[in-house]
This record gives sequence, structure tokens and C-alpha cells, in this order.
Amino acid sequence: MTTADPQLLANIRIVLTRTSHPGNIGAAARAMKTMGLSRLVLVDPAVFPNSQADAMASGAADLLTQARVCATLAEALADSTLALGVSARRRDIVSEVLTPPEASIRLLAEAQTGPVALVFGNETSGLSNEELSLCQGLVTIAANPAYSSLNLAAAVQVLSYEIRQAWLGHASWPQLELDAATGDEMERFYGHLETALAELEFLNPGSPGKLMLKLRRLFARTRLAKEEVNILRGILTAAQEAKQKANGTRNRGAE
Amino acid sequence: MTTADPQLLANIRIVLTRTSHPGNIGAAARAMKTMGLSRLVLVDPAVFPNSQADAMASGAADLLTQARVCATLAEALADSTLALGVSARRRDIVSEVLTPPEASIRLLAEAQTGPVALVFGNETSGLSNEELSLCQGLVTIAANPAYSSLNLAAAVQVLSYEIRQAWLGHASWPQLELDAATGDEMERFYGHLETALAELEFLNPGSPGKLMLKLRRLFARTRLAKEEVNILRGILTAAQEAKQKANGTRNRGAE
Repeated sequence: MTTADPQLLANIRIVLTRTSHPGNIGAAARAMKTMGLSRLVLVDPAVFPNSQADAMASGAADLLTQARVCATLAEALADSTLALGVSARRRDIVSEVLTPPEASIRLLAEAQTGPVALVFGNETSGLSNEELSLCQGLVTIAANPAYSSLNLAAAVQVLSYEIRQAWLGHASWPQLELDAATGDEMERFYGHLETALAELEFLNPGSPGKLMLKLRRLFARTRLAKEEVNILRGILTAAQEAKQKANGTRNRGAE
Repeated sequence: MTTADPQLLANIRIVLTRTSHPGNIGAAARAMKTMGLSRLVLVDPAVFPNSQADAMASGAADLLTQARVCATLAEALADSTLALGVSARRRDIVSEVLTPPEASIRLLAEAQTGPVALVFGNETSGLSNEELSLCQGLVTIAANPAYSSLNLAAAVQVLSYEIRQAWLGHASWPQLELDAATGDEMERFYGHLETALAELEFLNPGSPGKLMLKLRRLFARTRLAKEEVNILRGILTAAQEAKQKANGTRNRGAE
């Protein structure tokens, strides 16, 4: 892979979740295109398509035409192996906090093997904890502590700029040691895990959320390979079968 | 000087010349404040003050209230020792082209001794050659060659971001070796130079512009100390007196 490989930039998706103002979507598209990024994904936008978005996109209207619109962030990340969330605040939910240059190198390195995503939250509320739980890391722009509220498109501009500078500045990227699981594979694993833990009566069915978030954080930090996901799901299946058998035995014993 | 010296940021002015859209002025103010910059100077804005500027400034309305409005760029730069122009295109008029990190270090180093300026042109036409002739260097954001048109506020965001990162990242700044002349002192020198060259009949009075631009470029590249300006003006005065005497002699000779 050389510096000038445009496929690396094409593999980086900018994901905007629950954007309130269509003008910000257009301005974000313009910011992306000035830095050579082209893949825009919109999760549940309030208003789209929209003339104000077109106006703010200026010469980047093609990115809006080609934008993918998804109902959920999980859907948007289904085929990505890495998703980094952008937030002004540090959150406990994601353990790793990266600077924009660090995030850029991580994204470009992983873009060698497939799609990766940079996720921006709603203009007012940012990324929800649920959205952050789908990300493997957090990017924070070092801002004025007294006023850290970057406009959405301005944050997209800063990150896109840093990605381009990293792309221009590096002759080669570290090869991944991991055949990483995609977002979709991870979500199916988490679904399986939650079901299995419920069957094992390990999870409080009334409020499974807290434990599941802790487990998500653990695996997000670790990063799982496809093969590891298969092994873990094999263990879960074995545990489920054992539990069912135990229930059967107990039921028989009670007959 | 330590990293955390806020006076360095306070000595960096963001100068917007001939801005067409007041919303961009507000968005630029917001971009500045998120990175701790506070001094906004507006040269001949199309519309200001304005409710759209206030709306886009969001929590940075104080920067608009405190903004200085000037009729000309020369007035805006009168007390600055260093002015860098931001442009997507390389221009012959200014010899030195800096990246945003290089420009940030230059501005912060020189901000130790007094006000410095970062100058942004009109949204459509950018900086004019006349405006660039008042700058000692050019900053270019490495953008997508196929679409390099950053929104004005987005460009302010990128440069403000880089200034903050440089400010946060450096424990000390190189001391200037030069007691640099201010913009006002330089303009008075250029005025003197033009008058003197005209009197010496060295300048074509019909089109003095081209030679003066070349001379401006020379001195912008060199950077002049206050003392050097005084020396050069002394030489000009001596030359003028000699010429007047010569004219008198010739006139006497013709009597």
C-alpha cells in the first residue's frame, strides 16, 4: 500500500447519527470532499434529502446523492471492522480515547482490509451511551475547556483534515495482526451472549443493560477476530445445551 | 513562556476580509472560541452586525461583540509584526508557503512579543493580490486537488485547531532574533519608497504597481527590523535630497 492509495480513503465512512439540521449534513459533505473522503452514512436523520443540505454541500452534492441512509447505527456499522466515536467528553463506556492524529492512523491502517467508520452524534446531545457501545474507541478533539462545542460540520472538517494529513504523510501502514470481526458479527455475538446469559439465569432479565454494557466494553477494548467470535459462540452454545439438559434433568427429577 | 500562557492566544488575531455572508462570520467566531482564540477583526464586511451572525456564533457571541471592524486590511494589520494569509492556491506574490502546523508555530513564536494576524479572504474570490502583498507568508491547507474549496468557517476551524494543538504541545517557543517592524511601519516605508522612486524617475508613474509588488515581496521575505526600516528611510531621504539638489543644479544650469 502506498500513500496515494485512494481506496484507503474510500474505505473510511463518515457516519452522522440523528442529525437535526439538514444544513449540517450538507456542510459535513463539503468538509469531507475537501479532504478526499466520499462515503457518507446517515443514521435516522431528522430531515433528508433537503434543499438546505444541498445548498450547504456546495460542490459536494454528489456525496449527498450517494449517501446511505440507515435506520440504526448497528445497521450502518454492520460491515465495518472498526468504528470510532467522536465526542468532546470522555465517557466511561469506551475505554480508549484517541487524539485526531492517532484516530486517523488507526482508521487508515484498518482501512487496508475493509470498511471502517468515524461516528458523529446529534448536534445537541452527542453520541448516546448505546451508540458509543457500538464503537471500539473514542476520538476527542482537544478544545477550549470553557467552550468546547464545535459545530458538527466543523468537527467533521477537523477529523477529515487530520485523516488526509495522515494519508499524505505516511508511506506505509502497519498491517493488522487481526482478522477482525465486523460490526454485524459482533452484534450477533452480543445477541447470542445476552440470550445465553439469560438462559443461564446469570443476567437479571429485568435490567440486563448494565452487565451487557460492561461486557461490550471489555470486548470492544480487546477487539475480537472472526475466529475468536466463533469459538466464544461455540462455548455459549455448549453452555446453553448444558443448561437445557440440567433443566430437563431437574424436570425429570421433579416428575 | 510556558505552554499555558493565554496571552499567546490573545495576541493572535483572526482577520476576515470582505466577508459576504454574515453567517460565516458567526461560524468563524464559534470555531475560534472552541480553540481558545478570542480576537476577531473584520475588514469591510458586507453585513455586520447581523442576527444570522449571532445565531451561527452560538456560545461565541462575545467574540462578535468585541470584534474590531476596519475599513482596510492595512488598518487591521497596522500594529501587527506578522501577517499570514490563508489561501488554497499558491501565489507568486508571497514567496513563503507554510503548512498549518508550521504557520501555527510561527504565529505563536512571534505572539510572544506582540500582535500577529492570520488573514482569510472573501468566500468566493479569496485574498486579492493587494491583500496578499500585506502578508509576510502564505498558509495552505493540503486539500483534495479535485475539490479544495473549504467553507470559510471550516478553514478558520482547521487553522484554529492547529494553533491550539501547537500551543498545547510546545513547552517553549523560539525567541525572535528580530525587533520586527509593524505593519504600519512597513506601510509607511513602502509609501516613502514609492515617493522616492517616483522622484528619482525610477518608477513609471503611470504604472508603479508591478515594481512596487516585487519590492514588497522582497522585503516581506526578508522581514525588516524597526532599525532597518529607519536606516532604509534615511537612505531614501538622502537620495531624495540629492535628486532635488540635482534638479536645482540643472535648473540653475538652464538659467
